Amino acid sequence: MEPLGAAAAAARIAAGDLTPSELTERCAARIAERDDTVRAWVDWDPRPPTEAAAARDRETPTGPLHGVPVGIKDIIDTADLPTQHGSPIFAGHRPATDAACVAALRAAGAIVLGKTATTEFAAYEPAATTNPHDPGRTPGGSSSGSAAAVADGMVPLALGSQTAGSVVRPAAFCGVFGFKASYGRADRRGIGAQAPSLDTLGWFARHAGDLAIALGVLAGPAEGGGDRIHQPEHPRVAVVRTDHWDQADADTRTAIETAAARLADAGAEVDELETPEPFPGLTDAQTTIQAFEAAETLGPLRELHEDDLSESLRALLDTGAAIRPEAHVAALALGEDARSRATELFERWDVLLTPAARGAAPRGLDSTGDPVFCRAWTLLGTPVLAVPGLRGADGMPVGVQLVGRPGGDRRLIDLGGRLHTLLA
Amino acid sequence: MEPLGAAAAAARIAAGDLTPSELTERCAARIAERDDTVRAWVDWDPRPPTEAAAARDRETPTGPLHGVPVGIKDIIDTADLPTQHGSPIFAGHRPATDAACVAALRAAGAIVLGKTATTEFAAYEPAATTNPHDPGRTPGGSSSGSAAAVADGMVPLALGSQTAGSVVRPAAFCGVFGFKASYGRADRRGIGAQAPSLDTLGWFARHAGDLAIALGVLAGPAEGGGDRIHQPEHPRVAVVRTDHWDQADADTRTAIETAAARLADAGAEVDELETPEPFPGLTDAQTTIQAFEAAETLGPLRELHEDDLSESLRALLDTGAAIRPEAHVAALALGEDARSRATELFERWDVLLTPAARGAAPRGLDSTGDPVFCRAWTLLGTPVLAVPGLRGADGMPVGVQLVGRPGGDRRLIDLGGRLHTLLA
Repeated sequence: MEPLGAAAAAARIAAGDLTPSELTERCAARIAERDDTVRAWVDWDPRPPTEAAAARDRETPTGPLHGVPVGIKDIIDTADLPTQHGSPIFAGHRPATDAACVAALRAAGAIVLGKTATTEFAAYEPAATTNPHDPGRTPGGSSSGSAAAVADGMVPLALGSQTAGSVVRPAAFCGVFGFKASYGRADRRGIGAQAPSLDTLGWFARHAGDLAIALGVLAGPAEGGGDRIHQPEHPRVAVVRTDHWDQADADTRTAIETAAARLADAGAEVDELETPEPFPGLTDAQTTIQAFEAAETLGPLRELHEDDLSESLRALLDTGAAIRPEAHVAALALGEDARSRATELFERWDVLLTPAARGAAPRGLDSTGDPVFCRAWTLLGTPVLAVPGLRGADGMPVGVQLVGRPGGDRRLIDLGGRLHTLLA
Repeated sequence: MEPLGAAAAAARIAAGDLTPSELTERCAARIAERDDTVRAWVDWDPRPPTEAAAARDRETPTGPLHGVPVGIKDIIDTADLPTQHGSPIFAGHRPATDAACVAALRAAGAIVLGKTATTEFAAYEPAATTNPHDPGRTPGGSSSGSAAAVADGMVPLALGSQTAGSVVRPAAFCGVFGFKASYGRADRRGIGAQAPSLDTLGWFARHAGDLAIALGVLAGPAEGGGDRIHQPEHPRVAVVRTDHWDQADADTRTAIETAAARLADAGAEVDELETPEPFPGLTDAQTTIQAFEAAETLGPLRELHEDDLSESLRALLDTGAAIRPEAHVAALALGEDARSRATELFERWDVLLTPAARGAAPRGLDSTGDPVFCRAWTLLGTPVLAVPGLRGADGMPVGVQLVGRPGGDRRLIDLGGRLHTLLA
């Protein structure tokens, strides 16, 4: 039985054809069956939250996610479950309150099924999670457990976050939609900070429509009314290969060509775009900002708990601590300059089509892969979307990335849904 | 016997008239005599660092601070002494290495005499330190111990830091020079972060010349060669009363009038300046940035150690957590706009003369006073200097503040020395 998406599940629950308890049990059964291999969940009891589900059973559905189980990346505070940030420092830590995004999901009727595995403080030290399509490969990170849980049909919707490529990359590796909102649009309160100039909420689903429902629940109104602009019949798509194209393997190159061709066949205006200055500098600038701010944000924890940090995290913090404040300020200024020019870019183009990752999920679990194709857009603050549907030469999922204009989150999701239909 | 300044002490040591051990013993004796009342030092042993001093005795003086004892604010890492950040969370914490500024002082020959009391994480919860001029009054904060130790003749030079008014205010209250460098000029590595867009190293001395020696040791080269411009014979001084003038009491108002009059008598060109837009917005913008970034920077500590935070710190973090990211970005942009306009301002004026605090040190130890007259300049990133020499109606010290152009740190210190001579 194909697992239900969030919208379909909510509709059946609202129609009285399914109860929240039944759905929660189904998700729990899938987790019980598969999570010894996938390891998407932390502290899975493995009893489902039966009381919360039973309470939803008794309520009249009003919220758009009534009775829908969701997974929450374990850097996001939950009052009823530990929040451990993928670090022994926070072992068993129980926040006093829900993060704003968790509270919004619950208010919309969702049931928090559990916490999903994250890399250490959403940086580079891998979680135990494996790729649902091949347990010998990484699911990507840092939102490893959320991407894998959605891909494996354990839950229809899960929250992640992105500082470099922590939503788009695992979504592409696991073959699901991964959406990162416009910077500043979704409330971050209660989400563990890594690099505050970059950190942004994101979420995973198997259906574009589910992303849109979550957008309504999780994001405030768009700046400049970007959401109100109706969908163009013939979207103008710029294929952006970027300066990193030589790092894209054959699978990724084929995926971009395929997506571009299908869009053109379907009536889109598709052209190549070589991004002007200062866009090519964004990748390096993002790398500088991330390391510098991580060293500041996680500095006190390092002071107190040096021995409980991984070597890879210490290396990141060392790199950040060696960056001069002037270099950080210059990187922020470059980002600001690019943002001011992005307005013009998105007057000409509705969406950019660009690689989501260098290829399919790499073999091995000692790295979550390279966020090189995501860094620039995270600094630019645009909404981005990993669109699944394609497979590489060895059968593993290969995603492509769509980049929308800042504030145009809803429009991007809709366009991603259309592209997915063309790819599937 | 008048305690020696840093330059005078280093000169005597270099001449062989005084040994580092003798000087260290003198400082230790003063601390032993007075610190039960002043409480400027944390973990004062009370044995002086005799081994370090004896090592200096045996060395041939080369560095400009050879054998000079210094105090280090206890948010700054020292490898040989605990660094406790004014918080029980860091009780007994011993960093692995010296902060960059401490290493620079030691390389210049200085002897770290001990750590000086700080408010909790350099925010608002007072340290135990009292004002050396009246133990019933605050010494100001957050660099409370460093200001008080220098004022009381316990040490000729001490390090502090400023995020709002944490150097200028205690210097003014204690009647010493307090200098905050241009933003980004002094290396912050190893200094506990509070609000990274604002945090800046500063230091205290009883003589302007000592500040200049420390500048050479602690700061990199000035941007735009500001230090190379020679001192004007007739400095152009703008008196800036600011929108907060109604919060300045009679002592502060008199101090500004007196300083302006003495400067004019001595040949300076003195005029009033009402700062143009966007300068009046800087105070609010700084307040926003400080609270927002403190909530981010100290967030993980709060998660782990909520009960060990003071109520006042929790209130600051609550305020910061309630600020939307857009408001933070807007405040940073206002600061950037003002910085770009400051260039023009400092083509017309050599220095701004403005209040250092609302008045003399307030009575009581439950607050460190109000940084309202310092916030704007900290966000502007200019070097600032509290100049002592005046007294209020009840005999307590009253400082005035000089604001120099970004990068013009050395020039500002020289001008402050001249003003001090006119006031004393």
